[in-house]
Amino acid sequence: MQQRYIDVEELIVAQATPPGASALAIVRLAGPGCVDAVAAGFQRPERLREARGRSLVRGTFIDPRDGKPVDDLVAAVFRAPESPTGQDQVDFMTHGSPAVVAALVDALVALGCRRALPGEFSFRAFVAGKADLVESEAIDELSRARTAEARAAALRRLGGGVSAEIWRMRSELLEILAACEVLLDYPEDEVEGGLDGRLPAMRAALDALSALSAAHAGARLRLEGARVAVAGRTNAGKSSLFNRFLREERSIVSGEHGTTRDWIEASVDLEGIPLVLQDTAGLRSTTDAIEAEGVRRSRLLLDAADLVLYVVDGTAGLADDDRDFLEARPDALRVWNKTDSAECGPVPAGFHPVSALDGIGFQDLALAIVAKLPGGAGSADGLAGERQAALVEAARASLSDAIASIEAGEPLDLVSLDLKAASDSLGELTGETASPDVLDTIFSRFCVGK
Amino acid sequence: MQQRYIDVEELIVAQATPPGASALAIVRLAGPGCVDAVAAGFQRPERLREARGRSLVRGTFIDPRDGKPVDDLVAAVFRAPESPTGQDQVDFMTHGSPAVVAALVDALVALGCRRALPGEFSFRAFVAGKADLVESEAIDELSRARTAEARAAALRRLGGGVSAEIWRMRSELLEILAACEVLLDYPEDEVEGGLDGRLPAMRAALDALSALSAAHAGARLRLEGARVAVAGRTNAGKSSLFNRFLREERSIVSGEHGTTRDWIEASVDLEGIPLVLQDTAGLRSTTDAIEAEGVRRSRLLLDAADLVLYVVDGTAGLADDDRDFLEARPDALRVWNKTDSAECGPVPAGFHPVSALDGIGFQDLALAIVAKLPGGAGSADGLAGERQAALVEAARASLSDAIASIEAGEPLDLVSLDLKAASDSLGELTGETASPDVLDTIFSRFCVGK
Repeated sequence: MQQRYIDVEELIVAQATPPGASALAIVRLAGPGCVDAVAAGFQRPERLREARGRSLVRGTFIDPRDGKPVDDLVAAVFRAPESPTGQDQVDFMTHGSPAVVAALVDALVALGCRRALPGEFSFRAFVAGKADLVESEAIDELSRARTAEARAAALRRLGGGVSAEIWRMRSELLEILAACEVLLDYPEDEVEGGLDGRLPAMRAALDALSALSAAHAGARLRLEGARVAVAGRTNAGKSSLFNRFLREERSIVSGEHGTTRDWIEASVDLEGIPLVLQDTAGLRSTTDAIEAEGVRRSRLLLDAADLVLYVVDGTAGLADDDRDFLEARPDALRVWNKTDSAECGPVPAGFHPVSALDGIGFQDLALAIVAKLPGGAGSADGLAGERQAALVEAARASLSDAIASIEAGEPLDLVSLDLKAASDSLGELTGETASPDVLDTIFSRFCVGK
Repeated sequence: MQQRYIDVEELIVAQATPPGASALAIVRLAGPGCVDAVAAGFQRPERLREARGRSLVRGTFIDPRDGKPVDDLVAAVFRAPESPTGQDQVDFMTHGSPAVVAALVDALVALGCRRALPGEFSFRAFVAGKADLVESEAIDELSRARTAEARAAALRRLGGGVSAEIWRMRSELLEILAACEVLLDYPEDEVEGGLDGRLPAMRAALDALSALSAAHAGARLRLEGARVAVAGRTNAGKSSLFNRFLREERSIVSGEHGTTRDWIEASVDLEGIPLVLQDTAGLRSTTDAIEAEGVRRSRLLLDAADLVLYVVDGTAGLADDDRDFLEARPDALRVWNKTDSAECGPVPAGFHPVSALDGIGFQDLALAIVAKLPGGAGSADGLAGERQAALVEAARASLSDAIASIEAGEPLDLVSLDLKAASDSLGELTGETASPDVLDTIFSRFCVGK
């Protein structure tokens, strides 16, 4: 799967909008001199060639191979360095026809462009210094955000808020590292206390890294979401509870397409967390073969879920089946349903009382779900990626070691190694010291056209 | 389902690209003064407000309700009348995130826009005289075109070639109608021969309308395509033939998503016709229940297909099952397969010899398929829509009646009625005389954002 974005001088082209028929589509083209290179495809080439940066040019695009028109389109022309990629760039806004898009890409390839690799436009923006690695990854995260909270957090990362802090910390650590190396090289210059004077700044950076590390789970949860399975005996009110979620929470705008499943599933935005709710079949023991298969699949769902809501019918009370389940799954969130009924029994300890019928207790239940999900209590403002979290944690650990060594009066070469490791981790985070392999891995995860 | 596009002064907004995560999306906004109206959403409103027409403005869009950023985006600004809709217009190019698109549309609605109805942007372009009805419908057809031929034909209709001819014919008929009414009102001015001198022009128009009417089936076939089912006994080589189609023809770029089916299906571009090929199960009589269900479904497919290819194993010869099928379906295209084998028998009359194994005979078979499809022999250059075809045919019939009446020396008021009917049909075709109901029906067929 490794790819190489070696040559940023080549002209690259790809569809940048989703496939399918619609009103409009965008075909993106980037690379030095690309405007002139493809002007020959315009019925009036000079209109494209003479276009200023940040201008719109309307025209008919002609396939150079057969002279036939491809589409009447609008070309959004950008000139380097004032473009999203930092290069000359044209975003062709075509009619939203898959056949038109395919024909335009073919025609541009015939004019000397090649099809862009996944993430290649973003890679060029990175190389041009338009975005560091944290910001580049935020572009991808923004596309995947399903709730307003996740979108806002990705946008803040894209805006460079977190990046600026990381760049600042890294430059501070590099400065301390330089001082450390002066002390190593010229011990005779050693000032009173060695690096002791640097400790407050290092501790402040450590606190910031600890906070960033702790915020990862929250950011990840808001971006990636969680699967919550609703279980319980037949007639416990699982479906009513499920429907209550759909009524009370915003359903999520999602690009995914539904597929046929054996269970009911819906996506909701619960306090900014994109939840996939699954309504499982009843769990009672049965001898019927088809029903037994349903129960088997329900158990698979429960095993894969991030959280299980176990619903008990408060008017029927705890049955043996309920006790067995809760003993086997002590991590399940316990729900005491049907509190609206006069026959509902007292709420046992550890259960959340709720009436799926009239919604009483529902908001408390929602908050309990959030609190129980890993990262639910945190903010959305950490770094959402696993790679990023690992690098922040590595930098934090190295810096912590460096501080401990200074405090213990250990040799400075040890301190120097830890400081170097910490600043390297931060450099890899922003991309400044990331290897080509790492860059390949990151950008090739993006979709084509990005 | 009726909708009313009464107020073209309102500001309307809709996503113009397909749903789903991608690199970019477009949210389109149109209406008089829309640039100023939504400038407040820009972090630096003056940059949008002062933007010239046909320029690109980069900025951060802020939700006016909570002051939070929605996205960093590029606004393609058009000023009336130089825009696709003929109105002030902004195409916001956002990051391709469903959450971002939803948030931007919500924010624009909060700024006083309303969600656009299906086809409403196209309707405004029609009202502004940017496109007549034939051209407007071609925009929709362009989105649906799946082959290069269908795309090129839609583009020619969009370019106004057919429209110009219809406008010219209509103005000619109106001129003759005026002459006819002068003769009716002032019989004393009657010139020798009445309308006889107009007959050559009327016959030329009749020929043109006849040609346009005849070309409909070809245009329709290229745009809408056809379903071809491959049938035959088990081991006749249906799957080999099916796979030969996939190897030899271009598979179609399509926005549709696959769903699970009980038969194999593929889309290919056969001589510019988008064909859906269906490989059905074998058709032999069976007592096995599951297999019988497969056979039942195959028969449903065959009934729904535009053309059935019936494949016979040439090495086995015609069996009773084959004869029964062909007797019941005399319209099936008969294929004599396995001509590569030394054991293949002589080709019976009416069969197309083919070797699915090595492809010999395949090109002739492809041409035979095209010839057998309704409109296959025609060109793609007619009008593809049913409404359009009906109006062309109505105009043709009325004009033919008018000519016959003149030739038979019938009263001029009869001729006048027919001429009026013919020109009205043409006027409805271009939209010049179409009623609001007709316009509603046509534009509401378009997708939202178009």
